[in-house]
Amino acid sequence: MIQKPSIPKGTRDFGPAEMAGRDYIFNTVKTIFKKYGYSPIETPAMENLSTLLGKYGEEGDKLLFKILNSGDAFKDLRDMPHEELREATGNTLALNVCEKGLRYDLTVPFARYVVQHRNELTFPFKRYQIQPVWRADRPQKGRYREFYQCDVDVIGTDSLISELELVQIVDEVFKALDIRVRIKINNRKVLAGLAEMTGQPDKLTDITVAIDKIDKIGLDAVKEELAERGLFQESIAKIEPVLTLSGTNSDKTARMRELLTDSETGLRGLKELETLFSLIESAGITTEVELDLSLARGLNYYTGAIFEVKALDFAIGSICGGGRYDDLTGIFGLPSTSGVGISFGADRIYDVLLGLDKFPKDAIQGTEYLFVNMGEQTLPYILKAAAGFRAAGRSTEIYPEPAKLRKQFEYADKKGIRYVVLAGEDEMQNNELSIKNMQDGSQSKVKFSDIF
Amino acid sequence: MIQKPSIPKGTRDFGPAEMAGRDYIFNTVKTIFKKYGYSPIETPAMENLSTLLGKYGEEGDKLLFKILNSGDAFKDLRDMPHEELREATGNTLALNVCEKGLRYDLTVPFARYVVQHRNELTFPFKRYQIQPVWRADRPQKGRYREFYQCDVDVIGTDSLISELELVQIVDEVFKALDIRVRIKINNRKVLAGLAEMTGQPDKLTDITVAIDKIDKIGLDAVKEELAERGLFQESIAKIEPVLTLSGTNSDKTARMRELLTDSETGLRGLKELETLFSLIESAGITTEVELDLSLARGLNYYTGAIFEVKALDFAIGSICGGGRYDDLTGIFGLPSTSGVGISFGADRIYDVLLGLDKFPKDAIQGTEYLFVNMGEQTLPYILKAAAGFRAAGRSTEIYPEPAKLRKQFEYADKKGIRYVVLAGEDEMQNNELSIKNMQDGSQSKVKFSDIF
Repeated sequence: MIQKPSIPKGTRDFGPAEMAGRDYIFNTVKTIFKKYGYSPIETPAMENLSTLLGKYGEEGDKLLFKILNSGDAFKDLRDMPHEELREATGNTLALNVCEKGLRYDLTVPFARYVVQHRNELTFPFKRYQIQPVWRADRPQKGRYREFYQCDVDVIGTDSLISELELVQIVDEVFKALDIRVRIKINNRKVLAGLAEMTGQPDKLTDITVAIDKIDKIGLDAVKEELAERGLFQESIAKIEPVLTLSGTNSDKTARMRELLTDSETGLRGLKELETLFSLIESAGITTEVELDLSLARGLNYYTGAIFEVKALDFAIGSICGGGRYDDLTGIFGLPSTSGVGISFGADRIYDVLLGLDKFPKDAIQGTEYLFVNMGEQTLPYILKAAAGFRAAGRSTEIYPEPAKLRKQFEYADKKGIRYVVLAGEDEMQNNELSIKNMQDGSQSKVKFSDIF
Repeated sequence: MIQKPSIPKGTRDFGPAEMAGRDYIFNTVKTIFKKYGYSPIETPAMENLSTLLGKYGEEGDKLLFKILNSGDAFKDLRDMPHEELREATGNTLALNVCEKGLRYDLTVPFARYVVQHRNELTFPFKRYQIQPVWRADRPQKGRYREFYQCDVDVIGTDSLISELELVQIVDEVFKALDIRVRIKINNRKVLAGLAEMTGQPDKLTDITVAIDKIDKIGLDAVKEELAERGLFQESIAKIEPVLTLSGTNSDKTARMRELLTDSETGLRGLKELETLFSLIESAGITTEVELDLSLARGLNYYTGAIFEVKALDFAIGSICGGGRYDDLTGIFGLPSTSGVGISFGADRIYDVLLGLDKFPKDAIQGTEYLFVNMGEQTLPYILKAAAGFRAAGRSTEIYPEPAKLRKQFEYADKKGIRYVVLAGEDEMQNNELSIKNMQDGSQSKVKFSDIF
């Protein structure tokens, strides 16, 4: 039976052209990560469900891809009283037959890794990790069920030099990729101070979730949502001026200093921001860095700096983001280990480069030379010549069959091969090669001895 | 609740040292694949079970990791009559709740890819693919449930130049890795001829499965197994001399030509072998290439050349293998498309390099320079100097905290950092840096202006 080939929805194949673009991005970031002393690690695609569950909220648990136990997974389920089976939730039954799941992000596996290997690691531990993650999200444009994350973190220090380093990395990466960006920075402690200031400190999460949406839904809608989330009008009135603060970063911190005067946490956050801005200045970073007090990134585990990067010349969500977390490893038994990290959105960066036509023309390192196949007689001569080209590091193919010339040239054309090499009886006799430049159509003869 | 961190059995974390070794292998093969005009592709980790099932035999189907459907996977199962549920096999129930599985190898996804994208591809299509695969095998030493495969294939031509090219790639890869190897070659058509010759052509699979084990279990055990598999003693007597053939490759083909004189298929296979050996000679390959008539590699889809590569100086199974297949894409609707490919065993190659101490000493591209942190006063000076080192492409870290000197040096030592840079008040005043070589302990002062 013939099957129509297809792949699961929300997943993608990457062909040679996409791979070249993706490799260009990954190689750029890797080179820069290494220059700052970050080393690569990889973790398994499958983690124990006990490692993953409860780390991404109730919604996240539902989005985990679970893997059926091997062997007979259904032994217990078959023996379950029928009534119990009929009333069990999907989740209960899933946990009965699955004990592993696919990685949902790189952060939790990283925390698990650090704790599991803590006796082998040198702290502060600086790592990067570039691997796919899987989420059973409803697929839509730009949202996939399998996509790559590209994370860089340092764990084991609360020095703000680490924050600076990540800003330097962001600055270098996007300069190298020739994408103009703005780096937005905030501090979770300032947000906590803001919540204290309203007199509703328990509403910190509600406040952060709501104000995080200001870019998408606007100020009025944020105010409505704050009200829906139980903020008093009085509290909202206190938050509003913060959301609309303008001026330079020092204007903003100066104004915030007045507002947060009664919040120790808030002032500590402000001090961190000021120190970070001053380090950024010392380091001579020229990318625009903006204090954005509405930046919250929803993630509850952030405790200090929060980062987000926006492309200036292309409309798309944030292309990089992250922050400081003070207790990511606690759940696995290593408490009070502060770290900070950022994640580059490879898919979106790919879209930006494609949209702005910024992929370098030579990103596809395809074949440079195609030797036309003229049959058995000339084959040994061609084999020797091709070996010489390859020894010189040139990507070289021999057309595998003595097909019609037109077909062989068509192949070169479709693959974007720059030079076609012809070596028939004549060339062989004269120890020559005819080389045709496919771009300008010019053709020249070269002596075999002149090449090698 | 604190969880003891662990990962599923049969899976592994790769730390910075393992990653460096693996990257060295992957970068070596990628460079060579590209030099021969092969382009990378990637396919999703999850494939539809309909794509995977039935492609790896009954045993393979059992070893597929299946993924629970998202949403409520158990809807149908709950409504199933209790008796039916109790009597259903694990497999029936699995297919009721799972429609996706993890990739088991790279060959079937490649065939699926070629058919699905056939209108975008230029044939002959030359691709390489380096991705993990998953098998629910019983984990043991050297056998993992997640491991990388590293495949290179050309599809859309039956030219023996493609076989030659793969032999050239094998030759170059192992020379680049400095591993001495022997390349074993056989041809499935010769095996088919052998089966014809015994008068039991329907026993081809039994013959190949049995003789493939000769290296592991020896000639006598192979003969016993042949008998168990229904070969007549007469047939076995005809096979035995083939298995013990010695001499040069041309000695062997000459002898086989006599034996296979009545088998058209067998003679065709011999002709292919002779042509390939002659091409290998023309191309000047110096790696030893041996005709091994017991080589079968069990895989039923091979139809022509069969390859296997053994390390000469390290006892381990084959580290690379492959062959020609004439109808891999038929099941997906693209019949009679011949291809040939090989797969490098990255895990075993890693073990060989480690065992023979052949990893280059600079394979770990770790940090070169560590700037000691002496506190806020000198930080701007250090930031400027470090930026200069990085601009020069040097991997450079600043210790994030003004910790005790001993601790900072210990960090450099543990991470294998070669140079520690000290810049205190003195150095700053004189526009200097003190650089300590951690290998020989020497220390020198350099002018800031001499470096940048």
